[in-house]
Amino acid sequence: MPVRLALFGFGNVGRALARTLLETKAPFVVTALATKRHGAVVDAAGIDLGTILAGTDLPLRELPPIASVPADVLVEMTPLDPVSGEPALGYVRNALTAGMHVVTANKGPIARAYRELEALATKQGRMLRFEATLADCLPVFTLRRAALPLATITAIRGIVSSTNNHILSAAATGVPFEDALADAQRLGIAEADPRNDLEGHDAAAKATILANVLMGAELVPEDIAREPIDERAATAARAAADNGDRVRPLIEIARRGGKVVASFGPRRLAPMDPLFAVDDFSMGLVFETDLAGRVVVQLHDPHVDQVAYAILTDLLEISGTMPRP
Amino acid sequence: MPVRLALFGFGNVGRALARTLLETKAPFVVTALATKRHGAVVDAAGIDLGTILAGTDLPLRELPPIASVPADVLVEMTPLDPVSGEPALGYVRNALTAGMHVVTANKGPIARAYRELEALATKQGRMLRFEATLADCLPVFTLRRAALPLATITAIRGIVSSTNNHILSAAATGVPFEDALADAQRLGIAEADPRNDLEGHDAAAKATILANVLMGAELVPEDIAREPIDERAATAARAAADNGDRVRPLIEIARRGGKVVASFGPRRLAPMDPLFAVDDFSMGLVFETDLAGRVVVQLHDPHVDQVAYAILTDLLEISGTMPRP
Repeated sequence: MPVRLALFGFGNVGRALARTLLETKAPFVVTALATKRHGAVVDAAGIDLGTILAGTDLPLRELPPIASVPADVLVEMTPLDPVSGEPALGYVRNALTAGMHVVTANKGPIARAYRELEALATKQGRMLRFEATLADCLPVFTLRRAALPLATITAIRGIVSSTNNHILSAAATGVPFEDALADAQRLGIAEADPRNDLEGHDAAAKATILANVLMGAELVPEDIAREPIDERAATAARAAADNGDRVRPLIEIARRGGKVVASFGPRRLAPMDPLFAVDDFSMGLVFETDLAGRVVVQLHDPHVDQVAYAILTDLLEISGTMPRP
Repeated sequence: MPVRLALFGFGNVGRALARTLLETKAPFVVTALATKRHGAVVDAAGIDLGTILAGTDLPLRELPPIASVPADVLVEMTPLDPVSGEPALGYVRNALTAGMHVVTANKGPIARAYRELEALATKQGRMLRFEATLADCLPVFTLRRAALPLATITAIRGIVSSTNNHILSAAATGVPFEDALADAQRLGIAEADPRNDLEGHDAAAKATILANVLMGAELVPEDIAREPIDERAATAARAAADNGDRVRPLIEIARRGGKVVASFGPRRLAPMDPLFAVDDFSMGLVFETDLAGRVVVQLHDPHVDQVAYAILTDLLEISGTMPRP
């Protein structure tokens, strides 16, 4: 029996996921699909993704309530308000309440309400998965579950903002701040309003998720100290590069006096730093642990297909069909 | 019901595992234990590891046949002949045949007989796990299962030999070849006869495992082209460092014309290479994949406790008690 998916949101990520599902012939069937502007469709027999990707308008004005959708998993990929986390948070809550598993690509619900949603999922005996929220398919939560069980993570450093890393990487080679930003916008990596990235709100939401999920903290994004990625940081990046170093947009999470504290800002790294070579749109994390020592993961030059793949790995875990090596 | 373990081999790794089992209170009980020189013990009620670690001589001259040992999992950590893979290979085969799961820290059986052993495990409905054979607890096979399902790995580059990387890292700072080697021997990282490391036999066995397990190849260690880590490589490492580069002991595995080919030798890396910062005793791998893009993992400054932890992660997977995040 293939697992039945309801895809909410059908922008770049949703379309990439549809392509990935078609290409990998993974054991899933899409029974509901909601787009922002082109309607929705529900079909318990399965929706032909090839037809949808070709650009057909969908029959329903809007989806019926989540509880009535014939699906096992909600795949939540809607556009969201970064401050409130809505409407994604409501969708996630409703789906878990209705007894569905949930995979979300949206940071908002996890940064705002991880404890509540995880408790709800546990109570319902369902899985809540969100690998794509952090850094595309960079192994983070899958890594924790599979490779770091029982270990205590004592500190995390990392680069989790593609736009900011692209700007500072370009600055290192002499590209002006504004040009690098425009480049990221043209490639669809940076948003039209780039302040969410540049002022560190996106990085703060990700640091919150890491601290709360992996280090047992109870932070909100406003707790993260932020320094912006701006003209001054770009100038520092150029100067550092002239001396063989790099300035990277770094999140740093540590325990201090029983509390978990986190920050984001431009930081100068020497070549022997494990994050030095995490260049341009690449991302990476350094985990300090008790049992496993220092473990580093990096994802180089990801595209939107790598966001879709993160969702696919979550879906495969849920379906219990994870292939053996 | 705790899972019952038979520990074969009680050198540095076995003792580290015993300490880890005691410290983490993981749900296991050791029912058999065999040392090389101090006898063996079988006790279906469970052996007190604290007493054993304190240095008691054990009552049995040698263990009874594996099939009669009251255990669910053989944890194979015996000293082995690197060429034949024995006696470890025989132990692994016998345990699977007797219906036990197997976790091994020995490269030999996996490099020599992965296909046979995996087929035997599948036929018996048991698990064969070997995370510790590659690079301590660097996530490799757990990463593949959890974070890279359905993905095709098209190429692998990496540093998997601590002794060689220590020698070349020391050479970069001006330490003579012989001094760096003696240092690794003093720390118990390099063996008394260092040729297994320096001539690349150890790296070739690991490249064979990676190629066969992760890329579907059918190589034997003799198929891997080897260049030694020697005085000449150390001189090159010093010269490279003077220009800001590093020479690292690299394995490289790729597909060429439908065949998987692999090599080992000293290679010069620039600072923007993801393996540049994998210094001294650290290890790291770069995976090129179709669905996940380029994924990098590194383990920095590992100790023997990180070998034990790799075994523990395999045991936790087998026991099905892997904690959720």
